[in-house]
Amino acid sequence: MSQGTITPSIAKLLEGKNFVFFATLMEDGSPHVAPTWVDHEGDVILINTAMGRVKEKNVRKDPRVALSVCDQENPYHMVSIRGSVFEITPDGAEDQADKLAKRYFGLDKYPYRTQGEKRILLKIRPEKIHHQEPPPQK
Amino acid sequence: MSQGTITPSIAKLLEGKNFVFFATLMEDGSPHVAPTWVDHEGDVILINTAMGRVKEKNVRKDPRVALSVCDQENPYHMVSIRGSVFEITPDGAEDQADKLAKRYFGLDKYPYRTQGEKRILLKIRPEKIHHQEPPPQK
Repeated sequence: MSQGTITPSIAKLLEGKNFVFFATLMEDGSPHVAPTWVDHEGDVILINTAMGRVKEKNVRKDPRVALSVCDQENPYHMVSIRGSVFEITPDGAEDQADKLAKRYFGLDKYPYRTQGEKRILLKIRPEKIHHQEPPPQK
Repeated sequence: MSQGTITPSIAKLLEGKNFVFFATLMEDGSPHVAPTWVDHEGDVILINTAMGRVKEKNVRKDPRVALSVCDQENPYHMVSIRGSVFEITPDGAEDQADKLAKRYFGLDKYPYRTQGEKRILLKIRPEKIHHQEPPPQK
């Protein structure tokens, strides 16, 4: 368990085509978890969502989140992170959705925009990181 | 969103080699999420863990959990489930660990037993299920 530093090996997990499983708290305090795309800038984790979605509603009520991701090529390489959302912003969110569409789908534009949808970024500061490297290959 | 019925398509996700991402609540109410093996018996989800682990401590304090799993062959087939642990029991847990070792590793015995470790099953009743089938293949 380490404090919130994204090492090069963790960065690889966050920069692949892997889905992150993002946990937030519902209004009654119960947990919610769902897969989503992920990105990071240095030690800040970025989740791209749209205004009005469950993820946004939940983190506005309680900013505490957790997320976990496995390497899809080797699920025994994983990281679990606990932290808090410290900023919710539309700045850069549209471009970043396109960047992720490129990475995950090979498309130049995010293909799922709906009319009136406003993309936003949730910026997360990691507080506790549990990183598990896979055992050495035989 | 459906009530807690595990349909054949959801069962396939829970019976593959896919990892489930299992969210519980820490003592301070913040979320925790980590990948783990998963199984089910009918509409009951089973998580196999050991006495004294974070998962067990958390669900003894607050039984509300969430879990999500993607098909590793096609991550756009996914299910997210919210529910509660209604039973924590050692009954059947050792045999079930061996069953899962067979499924996930092709081994006859669960290979990670440590001295004094006591396996237990967390039995979860799904309350809300969000199941997303992948778009039809082109």
